[in-house]
Amino acid sequence: MECTFVSVSPLSDFPIQNLPFGVYSVNGESARVGVAIGDHVLDLPALSELGLFAQIDGLENSHSVFSKPYLNDFMALGRPVWRAVRKQLQEFLSNDSHPVRQQADKSLVCVELSKVAMHLPAKIGDYTDFYASREHATNVGVMFRGKDNALMPNWTHLPVGYHGRASSVVVSGTPLHRPNGQRRPDASKPPVFGPSVRLDYELEMAFFVGPGNALGEPMSLEQAEDCIFGVVLMNDWSARDIQAWEYVPLGPFLGKSFGTTVSPWVVTMDALEPFRVAQPPQDPQPLPYLAGSSATPGGYDISLEVHIKPHEDTEYHLLTKSNLKYMYWALRQQLTHHSISGCNMRPGDLCGTGTISGPTEDSFGSMLELSWSGQKDVVLGASGVTRKFIDDNDVIRITGHCQGNGFRIGFGECVGQILPAKHI
Amino acid sequence: MECTFVSVSPLSDFPIQNLPFGVYSVNGESARVGVAIGDHVLDLPALSELGLFAQIDGLENSHSVFSKPYLNDFMALGRPVWRAVRKQLQEFLSNDSHPVRQQADKSLVCVELSKVAMHLPAKIGDYTDFYASREHATNVGVMFRGKDNALMPNWTHLPVGYHGRASSVVVSGTPLHRPNGQRRPDASKPPVFGPSVRLDYELEMAFFVGPGNALGEPMSLEQAEDCIFGVVLMNDWSARDIQAWEYVPLGPFLGKSFGTTVSPWVVTMDALEPFRVAQPPQDPQPLPYLAGSSATPGGYDISLEVHIKPHEDTEYHLLTKSNLKYMYWALRQQLTHHSISGCNMRPGDLCGTGTISGPTEDSFGSMLELSWSGQKDVVLGASGVTRKFIDDNDVIRITGHCQGNGFRIGFGECVGQILPAKHI
Ligand SMILES: [Ca+2]
Ligand SMILES: [Ca+2]
Ligand SMILES: [Mg+2]
Ligand SMILES: [Mg+2]
Ligand code: NI
Repeated sequence: MECTFVSVSPLSDFPIQNLPFGVYSVNGESARVGVAIGDHVLDLPALSELGLFAQIDGLENSHSVFSKPYLNDFMALGRPVWRAVRKQLQEFLSNDSHPVRQQADKSLVCVELSKVAMHLPAKIGDYTDFYASREHATNVGVMFRGKDNALMPNWTHLPVGYHGRASSVVVSGTPLHRPNGQRRPDASKPPVFGPSVRLDYELEMAFFVGPGNALGEPMSLEQAEDCIFGVVLMNDWSARDIQAWEYVPLGPFLGKSFGTTVSPWVVTMDALEPFRVAQPPQDPQPLPYLAGSSATPGGYDISLEVHIKPHEDTEYHLLTKSNLKYMYWALRQQLTHHSISGCNMRPGDLCGTGTISGPTEDSFGSMLELSWSGQKDVVLGASGVTRKFIDDNDVIRITGHCQGNGFRIGFGECVGQILPAKHI
Repeated sequence: MECTFVSVSPLSDFPIQNLPFGVYSVNGESARVGVAIGDHVLDLPALSELGLFAQIDGLENSHSVFSKPYLNDFMALGRPVWRAVRKQLQEFLSNDSHPVRQQADKSLVCVELSKVAMHLPAKIGDYTDFYASREHATNVGVMFRGKDNALMPNWTHLPVGYHGRASSVVVSGTPLHRPNGQRRPDASKPPVFGPSVRLDYELEMAFFVGPGNALGEPMSLEQAEDCIFGVVLMNDWSARDIQAWEYVPLGPFLGKSFGTTVSPWVVTMDALEPFRVAQPPQDPQPLPYLAGSSATPGGYDISLEVHIKPHEDTEYHLLTKSNLKYMYWALRQQLTHHSISGCNMRPGDLCGTGTISGPTEDSFGSMLELSWSGQKDVVLGASGVTRKFIDDNDVIRITGHCQGNGFRIGFGECVGQILPAKHI
């Protein structure tokens, strides 16, 4: 499938096979829904006015849905509508004689990506973070509890997760201040207060929930599969020292909730469909509600990279190369488990996968793992700069893509800079 | 201060000294903001139209603010506006010759409480639950970790809390299904799946956040004090068996998120002002950001009761008599701590206190404590009915009030029934 409306480089993250949804604005005008194509954004309210979505069942109010500064209304409509919109966009983009193309003023329906400001894709009602990489959970477990007790007994039976803070989820590019908080560097002394000295990133992906479920009505694996709208890159910034002191017995709190960064373009599950792969074998066999008998594999082959731009330098250096396919628990298993108690999931809810570490050292998804809890220096390229954790003014960038035959389904980037702590 | 507009019994929860805010509807019409007085509700949009709030700085759009089906817009306006509205309402209610009284059609501004449906007071962006009662944390700690390790080392240094699930917070009267989930009754065998068999209540109160703070801008104790809009009763339903299996190492998740019930009337901090009492002495001295030097005591003397109506019976039986004054960590300390990392709090966010247990057995705020983890029967009155945990179709009711001189500031009730689990 070729895109004739705009030219798209084969190296672009956003070919016609991708078509991720996002919320954008130009020149401070009101934010609305757009779709990325090459180095341009298609304006969906404008295409609505031209009637591109007029025939889609269940999308009678397309102009209203796409004029919102969030994707929640669109996410609520469900897979058949998402697919129909995707199909219309692909036809519009690839067919020179498409009737809407005759009337479309290119300058109104199409904006250069370099000129837009991106916003959070959704109003996030609830944000949950899972812990679904066996390698990451094992690494952290070895550091905190020793090799013999690394994985908790529940870990292989269910996707462990916790409720996160929705208010502080920010879009890529938003700088965050290093958090202040309590930590206890010396266990024989009282805790101290001040800026975190063990600030970390976590390489994650996260999915946005579609229609969701009513309170008290769990979702099966099949329903969960249809209920995932799409996926973004996520950096779950973590203050390890604050976290270590506060987290017993109720879990992560302020060590996480000072900020979580997501990439702005939501790549749909339809775009990811060709990149399904088997998830790692699950032993023991999960309980029936998590096992199902789906015809489709539960994993996705998505290459991920984390780079750091240390404040001493103007260049990015590779920290981590990993892949979503390493995840032990599939996205649909995470979502089914989340709803099994009857907990209601709403359109726009965000679920993080947890840190995506792979089997080898260069695939570890956090500084905690790379520096093995600060015991060794991570060397950044030939410059001689080293890190154990993140310094003030360092920038962390996550990227990801699926490699197709002559094209790539990319995720754009998830970038954030850590500013110095506020004085308290 | 006497109320001459409607007659109010001295036993009423809602005298003129109270004036709690809530969201109500009549006959299926659109929900809007009301204030409870005696056994009536004042309609705030109607009083806005009559100009009652016309002179209030910062409340130029009072009709729009009060016509919303949530209090978030009002909560965002801050204490001076909340106080000015309270003052106008008290003058309107107590003064027969108040100019607005001349025009007010009583049937339009005043509805019988028995005829209204109550809704959630706010769109809750984030819900956090603390763990701020020393007695409760100690009881649970003794049961799970033994007497010597009952309180974790961090507990006396900071208000321990966790992010809860906002989507499943429901208003009093909403029935909930017993959750299904994983539990492991026999630690030598794999987990099993099915309905929770250790379903519990937790007696809590919760506060709604007012204006809040920007991301990265912590609140001092003084700012936090001014940022609390008001307080409700809360039942943090808990499935102890699901919780015990899932909660390591990331904290409570599905054992909690199947539902949390709040009372509909938000009692303002101004109404509670006369009932401030010293909070329990804090040893060790908290770190400076949590210690402050406030002129006002941090506790509130609020009597609380929990009753159960077992399915075998038509009458309520007392389970617990407790008091908010037992809380070790004050509400303002909870809120300051929450923001100290820079985490942004938004209008309408909900923060639970944690289970409010007192020093004596009859003041324990959960079945877990009353039955000492199911080791003994809790006898319900003379009927011979007993419980260790909550049975299907049982009803739990929480009530609370402050006793004034000839009046009481009541909270109404927080009621919920547990329906049988869905078959999965
Ligand atoms: Ca994480
Ligand atoms: Ca609780
Ligand atoms: Mg985070
Ligand atoms: Mg709950
Ligand atoms: Ni161009």
